[in-house]
Amino acid sequence: MRFTHETLGQRVVFASGDAPAAVTAEVAALGATRVMLIAAPAEAALADRVGADLPVVVRHDEVVMHVPVEVAQRARQAAAEGSVDALVCVGGGSTTGLAKAVAMTTGVPIVAVPTTYAGSEATNVWGLTDGEIKTTGVDTRVLPRSVVYDASLMLSLPVEMSVASGLNALAHCVDSMWGPRVDPIDQALAGEGIRGLAAGLPAVASDPAGLEGREQTLYGAYLAAVAFASAGSGIHHKICHVLGGMFDLPHAQTHAVVLPHVLAFNAPFAPEAERRIAQAFASPTANEGLAALRRALGAPRALDDYGMPKDGIRRAVAPILAAVPGNNPAPLTEENLTALLRAAWEGSEPA
Amino acid sequence: MRFTHETLGQRVVFASGDAPAAVTAEVAALGATRVMLIAAPAEAALADRVGADLPVVVRHDEVVMHVPVEVAQRARQAAAEGSVDALVCVGGGSTTGLAKAVAMTTGVPIVAVPTTYAGSEATNVWGLTDGEIKTTGVDTRVLPRSVVYDASLMLSLPVEMSVASGLNALAHCVDSMWGPRVDPIDQALAGEGIRGLAAGLPAVASDPAGLEGREQTLYGAYLAAVAFASAGSGIHHKICHVLGGMFDLPHAQTHAVVLPHVLAFNAPFAPEAERRIAQAFASPTANEGLAALRRALGAPRALDDYGMPKDGIRRAVAPILAAVPGNNPAPLTEENLTALLRAAWEGSEPA
Repeated sequence: MRFTHETLGQRVVFASGDAPAAVTAEVAALGATRVMLIAAPAEAALADRVGADLPVVVRHDEVVMHVPVEVAQRARQAAAEGSVDALVCVGGGSTTGLAKAVAMTTGVPIVAVPTTYAGSEATNVWGLTDGEIKTTGVDTRVLPRSVVYDASLMLSLPVEMSVASGLNALAHCVDSMWGPRVDPIDQALAGEGIRGLAAGLPAVASDPAGLEGREQTLYGAYLAAVAFASAGSGIHHKICHVLGGMFDLPHAQTHAVVLPHVLAFNAPFAPEAERRIAQAFASPTANEGLAALRRALGAPRALDDYGMPKDGIRRAVAPILAAVPGNNPAPLTEENLTALLRAAWEGSEPA
Repeated sequence: MRFTHETLGQRVVFASGDAPAAVTAEVAALGATRVMLIAAPAEAALADRVGADLPVVVRHDEVVMHVPVEVAQRARQAAAEGSVDALVCVGGGSTTGLAKAVAMTTGVPIVAVPTTYAGSEATNVWGLTDGEIKTTGVDTRVLPRSVVYDASLMLSLPVEMSVASGLNALAHCVDSMWGPRVDPIDQALAGEGIRGLAAGLPAVASDPAGLEGREQTLYGAYLAAVAFASAGSGIHHKICHVLGGMFDLPHAQTHAVVLPHVLAFNAPFAPEAERRIAQAFASPTANEGLAALRRALGAPRALDDYGMPKDGIRRAVAPILAAVPGNNPAPLTEENLTALLRAAWEGSEPA
């Protein structure tokens, strides 16, 4: 047992239906009196509700995916002109990302109100895009001081997107189990995240208007982000990153297809991870637990269905081999990686 | 699902046999160049080892239980005279407590090197004693920035004390499951703590010179402290506090005797806690898991053996009833509390 675990200090408030009061309390606890409220136009109505009792002096709605530097610059200028002392962001990863870009240069604290399961709110990672170049980094100032999770804000997220986003969070949990910096605390949090997602996602699918499934899914997605930020990207995310980049595959579907193959690949070499995943699924084995959840959700099965060419299997092998962390439990060869990719491509049972 | 969880930001380093290098790295990461090394005379040799490569400008060894204010005052003065910019404390709860007293008024960061399973290093709670009056409080500045756990530093802790201290940590985990501020994150961390303690304590008992049992126990004790600080004292700690105060009972033994009775009392009313505890013990039920561990450790059974008078059962009921948190799973009555205390007093099987 030899590891360094960095726990990020943050308040997390689960308050279904109560985001306005909870956010107001968190802002007050910061002693802030001049709030910049950041939300994309699509979230304007939600932001109106959340911000009703806040001392908002700047309302900012220019939110762009991947946070282009010029967009960040305009937001920073607006924050400076308004002399704001708190940032409240209502939205998904891009909105949180913009608030982080402002916090990064100003040190103004963030209260984040997520409306997706993306998880950026639980990390100290920022990202900025300059033209085609995306830069990411780690900075304590960008970690939101408080996160307010209100499952009622997710009710408008369509079931299909909720499930895709939730499976993405599940991939964060599973891949955390053998990420390059993994430690037992990450594994415990990832296991708890799987428990939440395995309980929540089928409930979201069967009762999209119900709060309980959304709550459990949010809870699981939050822990997924915490564990993944600490453990780092494992083999699953390296595979999906290479495939997504080479063949322009849809993000969520790629993760959903590849995950069971990676789990089946690593499980025999990672008994502790296997035990934890199985336990979190309340299933005899990790593989069976994931398979049952995927059946319940009608998860996608084959990369062939999403436009990956058959010869892509061969082409992807080398870049994936180069990217996989050295601590991956299963030893990787051209042969076994090719077999894994072929199974994911054709949608056969994970072996 | 409605809760606020405050995660305390802290680096935790598990580095068996490597405390000197790990502490030096943590101090360097703080950018500190003037260290105050705090350790009681009993830990002088350990502190010599840990501090060998540190820029120590003040060495302080006046450590007193419960941190009397005049002791704290002298330590603060020494810190000021030395213009120290980091505090390194090597020792148990009293030593960490003294470092906290200095950090509280100076803001100087702490790197803690625990030599017991007490857990103070993982909390933002400080305590000071003025004559007979003990005051405690919460302050972010007293939370150590880094904790370095080196199981090799515990090898000199006698088995009996190790087991008693470890069972105390186990009580923190179990009581966290229904503490007044408990949330599912606390429960997940407490469950992981139980797992570590249940694996570690029998190994410490059977192989006192081995590192593995000490490591697992340290790991469990760390998570116990994290969970307990967040969830707060539940019924178990209220009972032990009242009994200990009224009858001057030995701390660790009181906890060890009372715990199974509290677990059996609450378990039927706390299915989620019961499930998590059972799972952590890898046992069919929580009660069986705890019973098996206690048998393996030869844990004490009866308060009668430690000098509690029989009529103490009757006398303790009212103050305990007044102290137990309102969210305790099992509804409390004079009758069922009397039965619980009688069973703990005479050492009968928990029911």
